[in-house]
Amino acid sequence: MTNWNNLDTLASFKELEAAGRVDLAEVMSGENGAVRVRNYSVPMAAGLTYNFAAKAVDDSILEILKKLAEEQDLIGKFEELYNGAVINTGEKRLVLHQLCRGQLGADVIADGVNKREFYVKQQERIAEFAGKVHRGEIVNEDGEKLTEVVQIGIGGSDLGPRAMYIALENWAKKNNTLKMKASFISNVDPDDAAGVLANVDVRHALFVLVSKSGTTLETLTNESFVKDALKNAGLDAGKHMIAVTSETSPLAKNEGYLDAFFMDDYIGGRYSSTSAVGGAVLTLAFGPEVFARFLAGAAEEDKLAKEKDLCKNAAMLDALIGVYERNVLGYQSTAVLPYSQALSRFPAHLQQLDMESNGKSVNRFGEPVSYPTGPVIFGEPGTNGQHSFYQLLHQGKTIIPMQFIGFRNSQIGTDVVIQGSTSQQKLGANVAAQIIAFACGKDDTNLNKKFDGGRPSSIIIGEQLTPEALGALLAHFENKVMFQGFAWNLNSFDQEGVQLGKVLAKKVLAHETDGALAEYSALLNI
Amino acid sequence: MTNWNNLDTLASFKELEAAGRVDLAEVMSGENGAVRVRNYSVPMAAGLTYNFAAKAVDDSILEILKKLAEEQDLIGKFEELYNGAVINTGEKRLVLHQLCRGQLGADVIADGVNKREFYVKQQERIAEFAGKVHRGEIVNEDGEKLTEVVQIGIGGSDLGPRAMYIALENWAKKNNTLKMKASFISNVDPDDAAGVLANVDVRHALFVLVSKSGTTLETLTNESFVKDALKNAGLDAGKHMIAVTSETSPLAKNEGYLDAFFMDDYIGGRYSSTSAVGGAVLTLAFGPEVFARFLAGAAEEDKLAKEKDLCKNAAMLDALIGVYERNVLGYQSTAVLPYSQALSRFPAHLQQLDMESNGKSVNRFGEPVSYPTGPVIFGEPGTNGQHSFYQLLHQGKTIIPMQFIGFRNSQIGTDVVIQGSTSQQKLGANVAAQIIAFACGKDDTNLNKKFDGGRPSSIIIGEQLTPEALGALLAHFENKVMFQGFAWNLNSFDQEGVQLGKVLAKKVLAHETDGALAEYSALLNI
Repeated sequence: MTNWNNLDTLASFKELEAAGRVDLAEVMSGENGAVRVRNYSVPMAAGLTYNFAAKAVDDSILEILKKLAEEQDLIGKFEELYNGAVINTGEKRLVLHQLCRGQLGADVIADGVNKREFYVKQQERIAEFAGKVHRGEIVNEDGEKLTEVVQIGIGGSDLGPRAMYIALENWAKKNNTLKMKASFISNVDPDDAAGVLANVDVRHALFVLVSKSGTTLETLTNESFVKDALKNAGLDAGKHMIAVTSETSPLAKNEGYLDAFFMDDYIGGRYSSTSAVGGAVLTLAFGPEVFARFLAGAAEEDKLAKEKDLCKNAAMLDALIGVYERNVLGYQSTAVLPYSQALSRFPAHLQQLDMESNGKSVNRFGEPVSYPTGPVIFGEPGTNGQHSFYQLLHQGKTIIPMQFIGFRNSQIGTDVVIQGSTSQQKLGANVAAQIIAFACGKDDTNLNKKFDGGRPSSIIIGEQLTPEALGALLAHFENKVMFQGFAWNLNSFDQEGVQLGKVLAKKVLAHETDGALAEYSALLNI
Repeated sequence: MTNWNNLDTLASFKELEAAGRVDLAEVMSGENGAVRVRNYSVPMAAGLTYNFAAKAVDDSILEILKKLAEEQDLIGKFEELYNGAVINTGEKRLVLHQLCRGQLGADVIADGVNKREFYVKQQERIAEFAGKVHRGEIVNEDGEKLTEVVQIGIGGSDLGPRAMYIALENWAKKNNTLKMKASFISNVDPDDAAGVLANVDVRHALFVLVSKSGTTLETLTNESFVKDALKNAGLDAGKHMIAVTSETSPLAKNEGYLDAFFMDDYIGGRYSSTSAVGGAVLTLAFGPEVFARFLAGAAEEDKLAKEKDLCKNAAMLDALIGVYERNVLGYQSTAVLPYSQALSRFPAHLQQLDMESNGKSVNRFGEPVSYPTGPVIFGEPGTNGQHSFYQLLHQGKTIIPMQFIGFRNSQIGTDVVIQGSTSQQKLGANVAAQIIAFACGKDDTNLNKKFDGGRPSSIIIGEQLTPEALGALLAHFENKVMFQGFAWNLNSFDQEGVQLGKVLAKKVLAHETDGALAEYSALLNI
């Protein structure tokens, strides 16, 4: 059994605070900078590489981070997690999302079943169902194929699956494996459902209702929206809907659905892209083989996260560099900057994954912690961001660490040569240039044109954004967030901070308010 | 002539630093909270209201902010700006975006022309051109109507126009004024153009190439992409393209375009949504009347920004509360949270507007400032964000001020009643509930379920997101950022921080690199 300790009780953390700082602009200059780029590199799954040469660390800092990983027993904690310990102390639950894509340790038996077998069975059921839809064995009222899929969910039932779908849509088109176009309805704003449905051919659409509890208000509201739309089109909702839910939810054995596929309490919403929550829509959209490749990439990456040597474990290293930046260097935010249009919604997914997991002020025992925890995460794809908020990243008063992602090849492969280079080369040249501009800066007698440098970044580089690479990327960040939670001694797997708003919203709708809340409700015509 | 002073030289700023802090949870409780919501409210244009009851200010702080506004002569600076002074000191340019939508002061003559007349003339030329397209007087090779418009631009030529289009697309459909569907190509990633073009009917598409200089590399690359697509479809690019550019750019008199509409050096990209940059695509998409209504809302809001009384000037008040939060309370980020799916990309636009304008470390004279300047801006629509990053906003170690936006009515008007309320009511109830949850918190013996409160927010409330309301919203934030720049003594209208990356990217493409940059280039196969 591992010990769970607050970060600031660790001798290695005190050593980290006392250690000398690295002058990033200096170490990244000249031949030394080239050596760093060659050496500060960790292989990941699916041909990805994590390069941290432009982070403000050196061999001395890395040595202390190694001690910290050992003292905080990060690998021991991960072992407990994947062997089925109750890591989610707040809700008293196991944490099993990695088990959706592979078996990292012992068999995990819960609720009387082998959980790996449970997850695999759901994947098989989904694959079988999707196959019937794709082959035209499950059809609409007129015996016609269902050609579109629409996910109805919010939070983790929306952000992850949506980001993954967008990430692979063009790849799938290019590789002739886009079986069904996917759309997503999430917001309780009625204009969301109405706007999406206006662009959906409901007669040929299959709707996937995703709610673990079967009681998520936004999702049930949007279900009603969709059923109205089906009814108005003279269609039978029972021929157009499936559910992804827990076995105990009211949706599980609902006759109004074609079928139901199951998740459980051991996978939180923000970790559910590789469970049935992502599995249903992604398998319907891309076919079972593509979803299996996505899971394989994640599984391969999970295995690498078991590595005890910090410098061979990209997720753990990324996590601890982040802890150093947050708790010693004092940086509050992190920008996620994929140089890949396909990853346009990946930052929004990471925003939930990270901020909902580690945006906490009490440790796993419910005691207040006195050090900073999870950062603000934001980002947009490059090169677009360069023409937007990079001004502040380069010359603002606040240093924001950055996480770049780049690929050597595009997904579609159509390209043009302008001024002697392809678009893909321009894209890669820009990310390389930005890393150096941020790290090294540039002097100028006109201070308005001076760049201080010293702005740290890492980059994950891959050959192409394939299903395997996407799975590995996803798992990398899930595991990074997990290791950071371990380092900070948090429970990264509950989200009590979302409850109060729900309770008060119910009071507003029941007109049980007074004081300021009653005034705001009146202003909003509730 | 006004004097330009650093914030920390002001007596009122020192007074602000010394003033007592407001206990937000306390003042927002009970009847006092209700009184604050009724009183701390400022009318805006187009029926909008700015309510700042849940900000950590009181009458004493407001008195000091009034002094600060006067001592820093914010209104005098705005007067200089709209009367045509060289406010953009870095590039030695006037700053005239407000002149696109109205005349706030004296005639502004530059380059030998009356600039208001110049902007109006471009609007009229665009309206005339769009009318011909809509009526089928300008047609494709086969004499068929052009039914789609595709904007090619990046940064301010993309984010603002795209956010505005998305904001009004469903409204326009509902009001039968969607003339042409719009799409946007921005990223140099070849998968962006290829992905968008796969969903465009190029035979019936009109492409709008937007580049002030006519030399923006991303945009020229994407132009080439589009021309290839037109050629491959056997079409004549000259019948499918218009340009929005400056009169001196190589694009201005290019025979390869149906027509060219003009912008100038006095409107920065991030302030260009109401210029020809937004005007062309939005007029083509929605018709001239809708674009005129959008401009009217912005113009009405601009007039309110001339008001000297801080408590009647929402933009100036919002700005100074932000300065108080950034420079006295020490908050580094601001979350923009529209409870409106139509505003899904509005935070991305504000991210550029704010961070590119005020993410600076030198004052307008090129001298270093020693105080924090522009914050990190991020956000996603509610209620989605509630199921994502709100955990950190509620219970994280870092306080993030919030800017909510909400409307009493949806745009489309289709709704469902579930559990006794409509979706629109649920949406409004949630934003009201969140404001109180953030401000007041909730005690609990289980600290994991405790909410400290004291998390400040404001809200802009409107009847419906109409073209006028959108124009007013846009102008509010443009003017807020302007006033903050004045308060911080920055030049908010240049962006030297984007230059170094461009220079280094060119070196990479020319293979003129060494050291770390050469290594990164090799890793990315350049």
